[in-house]
Amino acid sequence: MADMKRAADLLQSWDRILILSHRSPDGDTLGCASALSRALLALGKSVQFRCADPVPKNMAYLFAGIEYGDFEPERIVTVDVADKALLGALEPLGERVDLAIDHHGTHRPFAREIWVDDTAGAACQMIYKLVQVMGVEITPEIADCLYTGISTDTGCFRYSNASPETHRIAASLLECGARAAEINRAMFETKSRAAVELLKHVYGDMEFYHDGRCAVLCLTRALLEETGAGESELTGVSSFVRQVEGVLIGLTLQERGENEYKVSMRSNAPASAQAVCARFGGGGHKFAAGCTIHAPLEEAKAQIVAACGEALKAF
Amino acid sequence: MADMKRAADLLQSWDRILILSHRSPDGDTLGCASALSRALLALGKSVQFRCADPVPKNMAYLFAGIEYGDFEPERIVTVDVADKALLGALEPLGERVDLAIDHHGTHRPFAREIWVDDTAGAACQMIYKLVQVMGVEITPEIADCLYTGISTDTGCFRYSNASPETHRIAASLLECGARAAEINRAMFETKSRAAVELLKHVYGDMEFYHDGRCAVLCLTRALLEETGAGESELTGVSSFVRQVEGVLIGLTLQERGENEYKVSMRSNAPASAQAVCARFGGGGHKFAAGCTIHAPLEEAKAQIVAACGEALKAF
Ligand SMILES: [Mn+2]
Ligand SMILES: [Mn+2]
Repeated sequence: MADMKRAADLLQSWDRILILSHRSPDGDTLGCASALSRALLALGKSVQFRCADPVPKNMAYLFAGIEYGDFEPERIVTVDVADKALLGALEPLGERVDLAIDHHGTHRPFAREIWVDDTAGAACQMIYKLVQVMGVEITPEIADCLYTGISTDTGCFRYSNASPETHRIAASLLECGARAAEINRAMFETKSRAAVELLKHVYGDMEFYHDGRCAVLCLTRALLEETGAGESELTGVSSFVRQVEGVLIGLTLQERGENEYKVSMRSNAPASAQAVCARFGGGGHKFAAGCTIHAPLEEAKAQIVAACGEALKAF
Repeated sequence: MADMKRAADLLQSWDRILILSHRSPDGDTLGCASALSRALLALGKSVQFRCADPVPKNMAYLFAGIEYGDFEPERIVTVDVADKALLGALEPLGERVDLAIDHHGTHRPFAREIWVDDTAGAACQMIYKLVQVMGVEITPEIADCLYTGISTDTGCFRYSNASPETHRIAASLLECGARAAEINRAMFETKSRAAVELLKHVYGDMEFYHDGRCAVLCLTRALLEETGAGESELTGVSSFVRQVEGVLIGLTLQERGENEYKVSMRSNAPASAQAVCARFGGGGHKFAAGCTIHAPLEEAKAQIVAACGEALKAF
């Protein structure tokens, strides 16, 4: 496995470099790609960037002013990509990747050289260090890109993956000119009209069972079509139900097909989402698990709510 | 004006100290009070704590294990109190305050000695440094208290008051054992049933005008009674309306009396909330202002929405 020094040496010796982000791109993979692009361009290299899905409109600023070249790439680098399947439509390129830079402990090797650091809260923390080892100055634009990845991957420093190093890097990025408050407003505080429509239903239709210790939300295909909500609006909704005071198990039932419901379950200690989902052939972690139930909505709901009731009896 | 060294010298020379927080206490004033209590107790002093309003249930952990004494106080210290009126029912004690420690640029002096640092994102940043100057070790409990104040006053590092120093202090507090992820979950991700009821109305009843560039929310007394929402649930609601994509002016109309509505207006650049509110005799900052309208709800709404429309014509 390569380390940071090796990754820096390789990149410095290469030219005509194609950088790949994972499909359904988030702030971290795009923050890495845009920061690394800017750094390699500063070193005088020709750079390209590709992603199977479009860059979300609210992250377009990451790439503002970057001039990508038109050439046949000689080297391919992936950033924040844990598995070549996550390249989406670009998966065929996965066979030809020269260097993978990633922070997922679950990384499944596919590149000739890999540099994985699973202590990094965001892959952007790795790029922060890499860029400096390559002797590139952290410009305000690079600082914006790296701050975006770090902030989005840690829930704005809210989660346990925000380490002391994460905060120290954030401090340096602010000093380099990162526009933190503006970035955070764009990433966390701007809701699409579809999101507002969805939230109206989330808070309006949430049902409580078992003395308020179990909260249930049903997302039918009709509802999702009516609100216009897509994947980005749905992200996080399954954790909303766990956030209500007194709730030990929160779950969403999302319609996937005729009489087919995907259950996303989140629990608070001591309740185990995993134990309940296992009874329906599902799996996951103790506090975040899932399963699929084949039944009409009311029946699917009755089954899973009853199983939650059984589990809650212990507390 | 005192500085940190002076504040430390005074506290070290005193005993039988009463610490006061501001009314409607937040994470910062309570984080300061609890951390300073623990530090002074570690120095062998007798300490008391008072606040005009009760400590919110979700912040009770700040004071867990602290043993306050029963004595006649000789010295009084306020933390995060910008004005003696903010002592609420304890305002009479404001005349007798020996030391005020605060980070508000708007601090109105009332104490014999004051130490104000308006570069601190939270008053807890000041207490972090003070405790160390006094030679007290930052225990995991003190780290929890200080982290709570810093995280809550900066919106979990989201706002522009989170400086490089804020992040570096957070890094140190994590190393001292602050349970950041748990604290942030309790502070930011747990919603009361009343909050859920309120959010249902917020997202369900929000109205859009002027091509979606103006969003309006009406909070009648009947609604607030029905949902059971109090001040803590209402905090932040007035900024929600500005967070919708495309909205330049977001406002809430809150019923205060018979035909009396308090308008809280937030705007995004280039719109000026201040300019609109000034037309109704109100004031504030460019992006956050307020005014009061005396009229029945529909008329009050029509007046303010029309004024917003005038202002939006310029963009
Ligand atoms: Mn990542
Ligand atoms: Mn404060």
